[in-house]
Amino acid sequence: MTHFASFTAAAQLHFGIVTDAGAISMNAAFPQFSSLQDVVVAGALKDLAKAAVGRAIDFKLDDIQYELPVAHPEKIICVGVNFPDRNAEYKDGVEAPPNMSLFPRFARSFTSADAPLIRPPESEKLDYEGEIAIVIGKQGRRIPQDQAYDHIAAITLCNEGTIRDWVRHAKFNVTQGKNWESSGAMGPWLVPFTHPSQLDDIRITTHVNGELRQDDRTSRMLFPIKRQIEYISTFTTLMPGDIVITGTPTGAGARLDPPQFLKPGDVVTVTAEGIGTLTNTIADEQA
Amino acid sequence: MTHFASFTAAAQLHFGIVTDAGAISMNAAFPQFSSLQDVVVAGALKDLAKAAVGRAIDFKLDDIQYELPVAHPEKIICVGVNFPDRNAEYKDGVEAPPNMSLFPRFARSFTSADAPLIRPPESEKLDYEGEIAIVIGKQGRRIPQDQAYDHIAAITLCNEGTIRDWVRHAKFNVTQGKNWESSGAMGPWLVPFTHPSQLDDIRITTHVNGELRQDDRTSRMLFPIKRQIEYISTFTTLMPGDIVITGTPTGAGARLDPPQFLKPGDVVTVTAEGIGTLTNTIADEQA
Repeated sequence: MTHFASFTAAAQLHFGIVTDAGAISMNAAFPQFSSLQDVVVAGALKDLAKAAVGRAIDFKLDDIQYELPVAHPEKIICVGVNFPDRNAEYKDGVEAPPNMSLFPRFARSFTSADAPLIRPPESEKLDYEGEIAIVIGKQGRRIPQDQAYDHIAAITLCNEGTIRDWVRHAKFNVTQGKNWESSGAMGPWLVPFTHPSQLDDIRITTHVNGELRQDDRTSRMLFPIKRQIEYISTFTTLMPGDIVITGTPTGAGARLDPPQFLKPGDVVTVTAEGIGTLTNTIADEQA
Repeated sequence: MTHFASFTAAAQLHFGIVTDAGAISMNAAFPQFSSLQDVVVAGALKDLAKAAVGRAIDFKLDDIQYELPVAHPEKIICVGVNFPDRNAEYKDGVEAPPNMSLFPRFARSFTSADAPLIRPPESEKLDYEGEIAIVIGKQGRRIPQDQAYDHIAAITLCNEGTIRDWVRHAKFNVTQGKNWESSGAMGPWLVPFTHPSQLDDIRITTHVNGELRQDDRTSRMLFPIKRQIEYISTFTTLMPGDIVITGTPTGAGARLDPPQFLKPGDVVTVTAEGIGTLTNTIADEQA
């Protein structure tokens, strides 16, 4: 499967294709686009892939720095508490709710693959959440579930990093704990979405320093991705480039006994079948 | 005080200045900008005002349609439960929290002045919330309260319209009830912020069909605007063009006994001293 990436190389931002052999820049071939997001919005991922066939590698992988695949989406919406045991983790005696919990994140709360997740001086409770993110390719409102997959252009990985003690700072809403600058990550690339089997029942795992912490399958979501698209598009128009982050399995550090939060130098990997691996180290914010 | 507006006239989008006599388009004079948001981001509101002095009116007010003053901000963050009696309105026995509740809204949940607020077929519980919105003019992170006002470029009005039964659809977060398409409004214009007295203790009222429903003063906020800027900028960088919606007084329709939700044809006005009046009628969504 083609891996579409946004990356910096030779001090320039590129969009293109990444393989085991290296990165191909497609900027020159598609001057009408200035970013991978533009390509997604134009529905031109296929054209990009076709045009790249037979091209030589422009950069070695060691010479590129991944950037966010979609840098400035109109909306990033996250689904909360979406795996069976995770609702039980809250131990609040409340049964699984009839509707999914949703919260927005701003793009600047995410960094890119291989870049550090930032632990701020205000908290020692930075936590990981491995998730699958979908990128919308086709505008829609009140999208029925049987058409939902038609609206997905691509999929990627997300570490929906969270500052736990700021999640419940106030009476309602998790906004502040979910929006610390560079506390999460997305990437490393977009995989085009062409078949339901890419999402229906895939395994997603999260490791911290090589230790397995989260391990589940998308088939066990309380609110499947098709339902997410249907529900979200009831109240707002999903636009090309919009991102839905589909929920994390049980096993985040806050719920371990005792809790284990991320420390500088820790390495977190989020892996999903057919997509790849998103790797980030942890670093304290520089003063 | 100058009123900076974004408006459509003669089938073109304009940015410029609105007076009782009419609207002045400044597009031609500032070809480097394509929107009022661009002017704000460039810190050029003053330049616009200067250049408009002595210019003739281009359009009568009857011939313009207001647009959102800042159409595509990176972030719109709303402060919840920010007036003393409003915390009591929740009647949940929980005392005022130590930190403010925050939730994002997407720009497409707002329509402009004089355009209809849309009641969707999914709910009859569209409600008003009159608020003051501030527009950030200067980037900042961890902004101390004594510098907070330096980061505000302009102020405007907001009807933070809400679909009440969707606010508590799920376990956490008010996201869906606060983000119905065109359920709220902002405008009609930006007033440049040049003195603390424009925000410290001004009266804000909301009327429905001429009946006073909300009436309070900014000096009574639980979390004053300076504190909002300080707190929000702790976890995220406030960027030029970002909007903070500062909280609504008691008296929303959901809290009346019996509750009174908005119906098609109702007229809601939000008025604040020194800013103006934001007027919207209610309409059912067209199939």
